[in-house]
Amino acid sequence: MQANKQDVLKRLNYIEGHLGGIRKMVEEDKYCVDILRQTYAVRKAIEKLESLLVEGHLHGCVPEGIASGNGEAIIEELVQLYNLAGNR
Amino acid sequence: MQANKQDVLKRLNYIEGHLGGIRKMVEEDKYCVDILRQTYAVRKAIEKLESLLVEGHLHGCVPEGIASGNGEAIIEELVQLYNLAGNR
Amino acid sequence: MQANKQDVLKRLNYIEGHLGGIRKMVEEDKYCVDILRQTYAVRKAIEKLESLLVEGHLHGCVPEGIASGNGEAIIEELVQLYNLAGNR
Amino acid sequence: MQANKQDVLKRLNYIEGHLGGIRKMVEEDKYCVDILRQTYAVRKAIEKLESLLVEGHLHGCVPEGIASGNGEAIIEELVQLYNLAGNR
Repeated sequence: MQANKQDVLKRLNYIEGHLGGIRKMVEEDKYCVDILRQTYAVRKAIEKLESLLVEGHLHGCVPEGIASGNGEAIIEELVQLYNLAGNR
Repeated sequence: MQANKQDVLKRLNYIEGHLGGIRKMVEEDKYCVDILRQTYAVRKAIEKLESLLVEGHLHGCVPEGIASGNGEAIIEELVQLYNLAGNR
Repeated sequence: MQANKQDVLKRLNYIEGHLGGIRKMVEEDKYCVDILRQTYAVRKAIEKLESLLVEGHLHGCVPEGIASGNGEAIIEELVQLYNLAGNR
Repeated sequence: MQANKQDVLKRLNYIEGHLGGIRKMVEEDKYCVDILRQTYAVRKAIEKLESLLVEGHLHGCVPEGIASGNGEAIIEELVQLYNLAGNR
């Protein structure tokens, strides 16, 4: 992984903590809309984490892979990632 | 909450387990693209959970709220949820 | 349609004008990234239009439909719209 | 532009035709939900067009740009495109 490991782990901690809070709300039968506001916040946090991982990959593995002759496979992966990221 | 509680908790368990796997991959410095494939799967699982919560809300609180005279507040919340769901 | 017709038509004009500009860029073989920036802007404009239509629907047809006894069909449509909106 | 020009123009034609149909529905005051189903179809068509343009860019400009020493600018653009594509 090329992204900063401490930063990625900090974001994972935040997401896991947030999910624990959502579990508590579900167990206590809180109002659906309040739970949904929290799940949307978690989704945004995961998208931010993805953005960080993608940025690390683009700055690290992509130029390295192309320089070392694996360009075609690296580019094919980027096409797949783009489509996965957009649920396409 | 109007959605089936056992179903919601089962999905939360799945998401938390998946995140634990991602944490392990990050700690072991796995390849960025393999980590990203997992974060996209988690994002899809959260979207599925949201869908379940929204469906419960629409079938439960929305007709009840409108019938009991809180229609305006209920509708205003739906507008907000729609925009939150689409990152708008 | 419940949303303001002039506002919706104004947005459609804007989107069509923007697409005409994109067509010109494609015909003149402009740089892909410059074309993509324009297609993303069009996508955002369509999402804004959707938001406007959804808001009109929620404030108009939804309470009316529930009041006149068509609640179940109206709610089922909202579930479908939510999933369509999120490509789910 | 690196994507196939005839394919891109064909998709633009389709999107413009579809928008013309939506304009007609709006002018004739059709049911909001029927209009929304069409705007979601247009949004999906634009996302498909974006996907095509991104693929062309990744297979063409990206390896060429890196090979000719413009790697840093090319990578920076890809980071921006990824974030734009996801509304982030």
